[in-house]
Amino acid sequence: MPEDRTEQPHIVTCTAPVNIAVIKYWGKRNEDIILPINSSLSVTLHQDQLKTTTTVATSRSFQEDRIWLNGKEEDITHPRLQSCLREIRRLARKRRNDGDSGVDSASLSHKVHICSVNNFPTAAGLASSAAGFACLVYSLARVFGVEGELSGIARQGSGSACRSMYGGFVQWIMGNKEDGKDSLAQQVEPETHWPELRILVLVASAERKPVGSTSGMQTSVKTSCLLKHRAESVVPGRMVEMTEAIRKKDFAAFAELTMKDSNQFHATCLDTYPPIFYLNHVSQQIISLVHRYNKHYGETRVAYTFDAGPNAVIFTLQQHVPEFVHMVQFFFPPETNEADFIKGLPVNCASLSEELKQGIGLEPMPKGINYIISTKAGPGPRVVEDPTQHLLLSDGFPKKTM
Amino acid sequence: MPEDRTEQPHIVTCTAPVNIAVIKYWGKRNEDIILPINSSLSVTLHQDQLKTTTTVATSRSFQEDRIWLNGKEEDITHPRLQSCLREIRRLARKRRNDGDSGVDSASLSHKVHICSVNNFPTAAGLASSAAGFACLVYSLARVFGVEGELSGIARQGSGSACRSMYGGFVQWIMGNKEDGKDSLAQQVEPETHWPELRILVLVASAERKPVGSTSGMQTSVKTSCLLKHRAESVVPGRMVEMTEAIRKKDFAAFAELTMKDSNQFHATCLDTYPPIFYLNHVSQQIISLVHRYNKHYGETRVAYTFDAGPNAVIFTLQQHVPEFVHMVQFFFPPETNEADFIKGLPVNCASLSEELKQGIGLEPMPKGINYIISTKAGPGPRVVEDPTQHLLLSDGFPKKTM
Repeated sequence: MPEDRTEQPHIVTCTAPVNIAVIKYWGKRNEDIILPINSSLSVTLHQDQLKTTTTVATSRSFQEDRIWLNGKEEDITHPRLQSCLREIRRLARKRRNDGDSGVDSASLSHKVHICSVNNFPTAAGLASSAAGFACLVYSLARVFGVEGELSGIARQGSGSACRSMYGGFVQWIMGNKEDGKDSLAQQVEPETHWPELRILVLVASAERKPVGSTSGMQTSVKTSCLLKHRAESVVPGRMVEMTEAIRKKDFAAFAELTMKDSNQFHATCLDTYPPIFYLNHVSQQIISLVHRYNKHYGETRVAYTFDAGPNAVIFTLQQHVPEFVHMVQFFFPPETNEADFIKGLPVNCASLSEELKQGIGLEPMPKGINYIISTKAGPGPRVVEDPTQHLLLSDGFPKKTM
Repeated sequence: MPEDRTEQPHIVTCTAPVNIAVIKYWGKRNEDIILPINSSLSVTLHQDQLKTTTTVATSRSFQEDRIWLNGKEEDITHPRLQSCLREIRRLARKRRNDGDSGVDSASLSHKVHICSVNNFPTAAGLASSAAGFACLVYSLARVFGVEGELSGIARQGSGSACRSMYGGFVQWIMGNKEDGKDSLAQQVEPETHWPELRILVLVASAERKPVGSTSGMQTSVKTSCLLKHRAESVVPGRMVEMTEAIRKKDFAAFAELTMKDSNQFHATCLDTYPPIFYLNHVSQQIISLVHRYNKHYGETRVAYTFDAGPNAVIFTLQQHVPEFVHMVQFFFPPETNEADFIKGLPVNCASLSEELKQGIGLEPMPKGINYIISTKAGPGPRVVEDPTQHLLLSDGFPKKTM
């Protein structure tokens, strides 16, 4: 690639997905380079519903590295942003020195402008840092012309971001090296593997901001004896079982293990001192609803999982989506109309039998759930080829509309 | 003792206390004779506030064993009642055969009438089975004239009942024999040991009946891998620490371990499949309140513990009772007036500083707590000498007033 002597910035735009863990990551053995105390496994959600878009520009005219997130300039000196920038540049230099012709040598000495937006409200409480750092690292790699394994760098931005570097079903292998070189994400199965699988994000109304995951997991590692046991003695077996359930598309096994692992993660939060509660009364009601629904049919048709916040993520098979969604709507009567309540992939109509409603036997809880996002497993990060989609103008600054 | 040839029944009345575990019992290794998977430790509550009273009568004229609980005749064939009756009679026969002159030989062939009442509403959700079975076993032993170690028999009625056989601070040593002969309660310190210690029972309003402890612990033993680890690897160390904290009257150590153990018990309930929730949003608010209160003063002044229901039991020292009680009243504004809200030992007036209210920073939750019972550690079961207190008349049937 010829060296670029113009002032015109080199611009790349990429998108990256959110992921939801079915075997949970909770607890670091190294805070600086983000090494976990156990392996974890997640499903990458489809970017048609949930994604981060990031534009990175380099130019000899830029005075300093700068970043704009969701329309607001943020502090680029944040240690985790710096880790990603430093590691990508280090990798680019290493490849250039190794004679890799793809590396853009000129860019290497240039400053970057970064602009990033989510297509979902931050208020939805979805872990946007995973998609955000995955997109940042993927975009930076593209702009500097480096390729190959990047999940180890994304991991240093936000642990779970490494899993957003791949589509489908992804494991983050904890590794055991002190330098973290073997703590990487790996695709278990592609997004096309299990087309019937559907994912519903139940966006719950939270009364107050929960404890952040970074400080929460620090306190858990320090104080919970159950967490240590989970990491060492429970998760290794579950990783094998979960991989097997996914490989065989065994929904009941997948669902039960997903629920058990979510519950165990929240159990370790409760065993933390002082205890951390992420499940509120709406979450407890969703958990009851799912178990009663499965019991009603005598089979495991639906599973829940909860991260460090009150939102539920539901897994089910395509054929059960309409009934389950309408049951959620019945037991959590929304303030809004149906069109606003159900977002994402279309959901067919369904009627609920009186027998089902009575079999569930729960009191409806009005306004407990704000809305549902209907989605499925999706691909990993992508380059956006259409230059009109860039978030930075040719002067390297964000579009005014943001 | 001369053989009693009259029809006049032999009547004994006793009282027994409630106890609250600070190292929790959850899970049996033997369901029939009730052997636990870990040792536990409790504080016996004072009978002036909470007690069971039981009258047992024997007479040659009685046709069959009968029992009345809280004014209603119940089924005497309940296996756990039968265990206690059988074991006490077996013990009496053994002692008679060993030549113990205290044993009432005549009674041994007689049927019993049993009548039992609690001085607290069952609706309060306090584990009444511990006091109930302790009182039953203590009364039966008295009527048959047997003495000595009885906690092993009470244990076969209800596990935690063995701890209600002693006053003050009591441990239930799990034992390791298959026949349970070494699974017994033992006093750690008498009720006079720590006179400043105060206990507040916060009776919470429950929306629905929680999972019963018998079936709950069965499911936990079957499904929770964290429970097994807790029983084997966590509790043994905590028993030592707790005994030491009590011996030294180290409130901070006692309080922190009490809270951690309550949280860990509820963590294992959440790790059960399907998960069991005993802590509702009122319990979560009480937990927050206690941690914020302690943080405000920079020392551990108050501790909470929760059993298999929504009530909180609070431990604190005498000097902190007035302020803490009024703070509970402020953050859980009751429907009733103050006189009805605070029962038991008198609580002095206290004013809450604005600084404290703001330091706590929680939204008040009206009607979350129905009332508070203020009490302290108390003695073990007692014989009631006053014959007018008998719950059975001289014909061996319950008083009409019941």
